[in-house]
Amino acid sequence: MPRVRVTRRVHWNSAHRLFRPDWSDERNVEVFGACSNPNWHGHNYEMDVTVEGEVDPETGYVLDLKILRDAVEARVVADLDHRNLNVEVPWLGGVNPTTENLVVAIWRRLEGAIPSGVRLVKLVLWETPRNYVEYSGG
Amino acid sequence: MPRVRVTRRVHWNSAHRLFRPDWSDERNVEVFGACSNPNWHGHNYEMDVTVEGEVDPETGYVLDLKILRDAVEARVVADLDHRNLNVEVPWLGGVNPTTENLVVAIWRRLEGAIPSGVRLVKLVLWETPRNYVEYSGG
Amino acid sequence: MPRVRVTRRVHWNSAHRLFRPDWSDERNVEVFGACSNPNWHGHNYEMDVTVEGEVDPETGYVLDLKILRDAVEARVVADLDHRNLNVEVPWLGGVNPTTENLVVAIWRRLEGAIPSGVRLVKLVLWETPRNYVEYSGG
Amino acid sequence: MPRVRVTRRVHWNSAHRLFRPDWSDERNVEVFGACSNPNWHGHNYEMDVTVEGEVDPETGYVLDLKILRDAVEARVVADLDHRNLNVEVPWLGGVNPTTENLVVAIWRRLEGAIPSGVRLVKLVLWETPRNYVEYSGG
Amino acid sequence: MPRVRVTRRVHWNSAHRLFRPDWSDERNVEVFGACSNPNWHGHNYEMDVTVEGEVDPETGYVLDLKILRDAVEARVVADLDHRNLNVEVPWLGGVNPTTENLVVAIWRRLEGAIPSGVRLVKLVLWETPRNYVEYSGG
Amino acid sequence: MPRVRVTRRVHWNSAHRLFRPDWSDERNVEVFGACSNPNWHGHNYEMDVTVEGEVDPETGYVLDLKILRDAVEARVVADLDHRNLNVEVPWLGGVNPTTENLVVAIWRRLEGAIPSGVRLVKLVLWETPRNYVEYSGG
Repeated sequence: MPRVRVTRRVHWNSAHRLFRPDWSDERNVEVFGACSNPNWHGHNYEMDVTVEGEVDPETGYVLDLKILRDAVEARVVADLDHRNLNVEVPWLGGVNPTTENLVVAIWRRLEGAIPSGVRLVKLVLWETPRNYVEYSGG
Repeated sequence: MPRVRVTRRVHWNSAHRLFRPDWSDERNVEVFGACSNPNWHGHNYEMDVTVEGEVDPETGYVLDLKILRDAVEARVVADLDHRNLNVEVPWLGGVNPTTENLVVAIWRRLEGAIPSGVRLVKLVLWETPRNYVEYSGG
Repeated sequence: MPRVRVTRRVHWNSAHRLFRPDWSDERNVEVFGACSNPNWHGHNYEMDVTVEGEVDPETGYVLDLKILRDAVEARVVADLDHRNLNVEVPWLGGVNPTTENLVVAIWRRLEGAIPSGVRLVKLVLWETPRNYVEYSGG
Repeated sequence: MPRVRVTRRVHWNSAHRLFRPDWSDERNVEVFGACSNPNWHGHNYEMDVTVEGEVDPETGYVLDLKILRDAVEARVVADLDHRNLNVEVPWLGGVNPTTENLVVAIWRRLEGAIPSGVRLVKLVLWETPRNYVEYSGG
Repeated sequence: MPRVRVTRRVHWNSAHRLFRPDWSDERNVEVFGACSNPNWHGHNYEMDVTVEGEVDPETGYVLDLKILRDAVEARVVADLDHRNLNVEVPWLGGVNPTTENLVVAIWRRLEGAIPSGVRLVKLVLWETPRNYVEYSGG
Repeated sequence: MPRVRVTRRVHWNSAHRLFRPDWSDERNVEVFGACSNPNWHGHNYEMDVTVEGEVDPETGYVLDLKILRDAVEARVVADLDHRNLNVEVPWLGGVNPTTENLVVAIWRRLEGAIPSGVRLVKLVLWETPRNYVEYSGG
């Protein structure tokens, strides 16, 4: 059967700052600039979650997109939306929330929630309309 | 010569329903939910058609995009636009028009229309602004 | 208090055809062309619902956008999404579903659901990314 | 001379929460829900700033858009970008940063910076791609 | 009958420069900066053409959008697309092609082509995704 | 450490024509059509610049996006914006400015400016919202 990639785009809003608690404030500002503002800033994040698999000859689906959407909403969006990424998300604990670190942590969080026979192959995460990162595992 | 990918984005509107005639109505609704509505629903489809080839040193083109656009309009868009995907498109005959099945059928329909020296490498098909599929053959 | 306009954008998918049952098929095709296809076609509709009112000095809201969103979802989107606009929507009964007729019928459907102190002032309805209509009552 | 409206779109990122310090935490959560999260959340704001005036027969401009852009960047974006709207912006002091209150405060902040002969006529402020407010003074 | 506004969005590409032949080169550069480059620059223009009228009770149309589209394509887009706005468009003759001057000239060009019973009410012209002008006559 | 791709989107406006000086005007028009207009036309170009590398465990960055943005602005955008691609850009000298030739020339121009440890992996260049090319070297 043909192998097809299927993508669901999701959205959430969060506060964050780029910050390492083991560095001085001066060092944080030197490296992260305005992104290190101790009073936080925030973003409307958009993320494309892409899975790949064979088309099921019975349904014509790789998977029912509702299953993918519900998994991403339950395991990722519900934890991040209207939250502070530095202090409120247990599975981000200790991570400096750069977009790179976020996309890797979300990958690990989502990987186990993908139905068998289907494989998570790509996450694209937009921090702003002009800046985004992409992760494919590895 | 450098190998470059060239993409044309096209657009059309269709009606469809997710439905297997060999299943009972109950089974169709159970699997496909509101997408199985017997009175149909529809979409504005957007599709990116990507071909790859060497840049022709004479023209600076991989191919004249007008050729690609005309091929896609003639072989795909003209047959799907303002049509019912379940009952009016001979080359979709018998296919349950999920986005996955659509993208594979369009690939097979387009493959033979690509000029020699250039290769069809990717189709991306949006059913809604938040759901899309991608197929690269195979 | 300042008067501000507040907008919520919503989305749904429907099938329809442009068709007057009191006209012959020939007349329908002559006037509405491919949009009159007896096998239907469909669209991803996007709609901006705009209300206007004074900013409440206590909350800083004209109204809680969740109230507007829920009203539009319950009274409009729930009835139109994954539906056939010609045959399945009681409050569209008998209307030829041009975008113009749709936007006026939606206005009448929504008007009574807007909280007191706030006024429905504009609907913008996209049938495709390049065609849209706007209605402000009257 | 013809009167034309000219718009510049700008962008910034901020953290905020909906919160009245004179209310209990319970009351804040009851009215503002997740938007009242004490650990903040944030947005990518987009704003269209529209001015109106006669076309200058000498230059063909209503005004040089660089002047408008620089005024908006200097008086608004520089103060809000990568900032916390509740605690770091003197000219928002004491305002609960709903989108409605923000757009009115930005209007007052910008009004005096518009060159003579040209009039600020509209601000459209997006908090998310699906929610926005519009203010025209008054 | 209800009055509704109907919009068609169109697209074209042109070269231009901001330049007054009766000024010295120095004066042109002083006022128009890089936009005055004697070797030209160019844009992908997008324009929304909005007309208003009563909904025809027979068709449910304010007007058939194909009529509006064809009029705009024939009278405006065909003359501007892949053209130089300073030297190749008779009906722009002598106009310094700022976005303001363009939108006024396009209005005058289109006004006479609108079917009777329908009124041209607004043109919105994007020179870039962040800069646009709007004209309503007068 | 995980390998992540990081992208910055940039924008510029240019004039150009498709034209080979060693061909007759007739031959140029025959092959390139309206794109060969001797009076030029132009575009708003958008480009996504993607680099790949390991996430630095110290900063959480693959690279500081400001470094990538500044390199692209300095080496590419500054030279192309408000310029004529046929006659004003030394490092495009002699190239017929098709989108394919442009993306390859920009790749060669950028390649040396990417910080060590990070690799340029993809350029996507939009000439219009419906036509784009992609180059990954090679």
